[in-house]
Amino acid sequence: MAITQPTDVIRGWIEEIRPARDGGGRTELLVRGGGTVHTITAEPALLPADGLSAQSVVEVTVDESGDLPRATALRVVSEALPLPVDLRNPDLTDLDHRHLHIRSRQLRASATLRHHVQKYVREFLDAQGCHLVQTPILTSASSVSSGAVFQVPYYGGQTASLPQSNWMYADAMVSALERVYTFGPTFRREDDADGIHLVEIWQVSADFAWATYQDLMAIEEEMLRHVAIRLRDEHADVYALAGLPMDHLDAITKPFARISYADSVTLLRDLGHDFTYGADYTKEQSDAISSTFDRPYFITGFPKELKNFWFPVNEDGTTPTSDLFAHTGQGEIIGGGERAHQAEEMIAGLRRRGYDLAKFEWLVDIRRYGCTPHAGFSMGFDRLVAMYLGAEDIRNAVLFPRVPHEAIKP
Amino acid sequence: MAITQPTDVIRGWIEEIRPARDGGGRTELLVRGGGTVHTITAEPALLPADGLSAQSVVEVTVDESGDLPRATALRVVSEALPLPVDLRNPDLTDLDHRHLHIRSRQLRASATLRHHVQKYVREFLDAQGCHLVQTPILTSASSVSSGAVFQVPYYGGQTASLPQSNWMYADAMVSALERVYTFGPTFRREDDADGIHLVEIWQVSADFAWATYQDLMAIEEEMLRHVAIRLRDEHADVYALAGLPMDHLDAITKPFARISYADSVTLLRDLGHDFTYGADYTKEQSDAISSTFDRPYFITGFPKELKNFWFPVNEDGTTPTSDLFAHTGQGEIIGGGERAHQAEEMIAGLRRRGYDLAKFEWLVDIRRYGCTPHAGFSMGFDRLVAMYLGAEDIRNAVLFPRVPHEAIKP
Repeated sequence: MAITQPTDVIRGWIEEIRPARDGGGRTELLVRGGGTVHTITAEPALLPADGLSAQSVVEVTVDESGDLPRATALRVVSEALPLPVDLRNPDLTDLDHRHLHIRSRQLRASATLRHHVQKYVREFLDAQGCHLVQTPILTSASSVSSGAVFQVPYYGGQTASLPQSNWMYADAMVSALERVYTFGPTFRREDDADGIHLVEIWQVSADFAWATYQDLMAIEEEMLRHVAIRLRDEHADVYALAGLPMDHLDAITKPFARISYADSVTLLRDLGHDFTYGADYTKEQSDAISSTFDRPYFITGFPKELKNFWFPVNEDGTTPTSDLFAHTGQGEIIGGGERAHQAEEMIAGLRRRGYDLAKFEWLVDIRRYGCTPHAGFSMGFDRLVAMYLGAEDIRNAVLFPRVPHEAIKP
Repeated sequence: MAITQPTDVIRGWIEEIRPARDGGGRTELLVRGGGTVHTITAEPALLPADGLSAQSVVEVTVDESGDLPRATALRVVSEALPLPVDLRNPDLTDLDHRHLHIRSRQLRASATLRHHVQKYVREFLDAQGCHLVQTPILTSASSVSSGAVFQVPYYGGQTASLPQSNWMYADAMVSALERVYTFGPTFRREDDADGIHLVEIWQVSADFAWATYQDLMAIEEEMLRHVAIRLRDEHADVYALAGLPMDHLDAITKPFARISYADSVTLLRDLGHDFTYGADYTKEQSDAISSTFDRPYFITGFPKELKNFWFPVNEDGTTPTSDLFAHTGQGEIIGGGERAHQAEEMIAGLRRRGYDLAKFEWLVDIRRYGCTPHAGFSMGFDRLVAMYLGAEDIRNAVLFPRVPHEAIKP
């Protein structure tokens, strides 16, 4: 590493100053730095006469010969103004002070675990022979067509859309690279501010030539288990520093539950809900289903009314699809299934859903010029992280969240 | 892996059908699949009577006992229409057919190498203890203020901007995680369609607590060398399949050249250019400087006129900055330097450049509440890939490029 650190110096931010636990009139400095929190004992005379505020940046020369490093000199590099927030008990729904809350143990743990989750997801998919592709953000066609699209004035009087999903570019790349995935931002002009919806969503869309929706479920389950085991076995220290429980991780290492959409209808009715076959679940209904599972679960075979144009339709009106739901309150984490891989099949889907065929002509082309059967999934990465964090509110899994109807801050 | 492949079956896309090299009336099928191109001998009688078009998807049962796999059965899974483009000699500036050109050996190699470059960049930065952070796309303040910003109607009559850089969120996260990097899209409403400018740019912004601009140069050089060595030593097959030369990689493994901005002025004047100290290089001038180097090079100590508000200014009007340029025609790859880490310093910079202070108040706050000296860089990832590919046109490094003033396709 190019940046050399003096060996007898600890540098970082003051988290706390408190009387030393062994008495003797000394103080203890908790200094965050070098990826950990150091406890340093100091004679009070070493501290500035007018005090030292939390979050001030210090450089402490230490004698390491005792149980704890003992300060022999202390330099204030950057003195902090009194903080307007309490970092030891932060209000993580307060987005006005997010730029300061990122220093809290909770959000530092969140950012650290998020870093590891994306790393392990990629590690898993790379090992499957998948290529990571960067897909366009300014698109000529969004993919969900629900009206909840952000539009951007572009050159020459054109209007670009921000993508609601990046599945379509992954789907196209299957015909070049066979196994691909994306990892990038997608956008939904949502109205629900319910703790699981965001305006900006980082999404992983993976697509596999020759795969069926059953193959896909095996891949997804293995991937989520891989991440859970790595977090549980290697990052207990991060959970501990932020006071986060880890019990929910064990459930993610067990075989996931699976039920059909048809069985979910029966289950809902048994639970006292009035539910019509072919309808989508309300949040309340989805929560009711989740409450019957102690681990992540798949629901398979959604009827065609619930699935978009790129899914084929079986004779009985169901589709070869499976969605993965969290057992910890984040709702649907992954949606996926087999792709219509024949041109006529996709054109029929576009007509069925009332799409403008011209906008998706290029995706139909992919099918006209030799296309393998394939299957793919789209995963909401922020919800995935929230699941691993055990976070009820998705804002706790995102550093600078964009929440429906709230101002853009910071 | 969940998707099981039959062992005596080769599945994929027909690249070519040609007479077998050993004569005997047999044909050879080149089938792209499983990450390679298979050569399979076949009796002509096995092929469909009405021929087999290129890009058709086939499943060939083979006998592997000879030198080459010999077809014993062939099934056409998806018959391709005659292609409107020549994949053996593709026009990669033709964005109307990009969705088909992605199947060419050139763009498949490009996508494969791009996958590896991003992987090795992350591998290097992860090993430096950096955290990858995902930063917002819908922002309240873009960072360059040149007017070349895409704007997006947001909730409640607000206007969001698409970021011109993601440096500011990396900068802010230094005060939480010390070493961070971003990898995400940024946007420039450019006018230059000169082979090195794009509208959508994937950018890596890395930021390091306690680093100086000299530390930064060492990190950047080591990172680029790491990637070059990995590509050269492990992916010669990918270069070979696409007919790409690799000689330019060796230069990236050597120590990079370094000159000061002041020396670049002298150099330009010696080369016969009329150049005023404090001006930015034109493309012609930048190319003239590049032509004197046989390897990537840094230019350091840019005058304050050329650097934005977040850089401190030395007494002589220079800044502790360094930009990295390619020796292979892609211009500036990385811009970086020390960050103004004191509130007053940054406020002075904002005033000097005429920015709205209110929009950057949160970044000033980062400095008010305890801020380490730090330094960071922003790297144009697409140009980086183009450099490793030896690609003159940046469009060859991007699957679905967005080029200034061109339509959004696909």
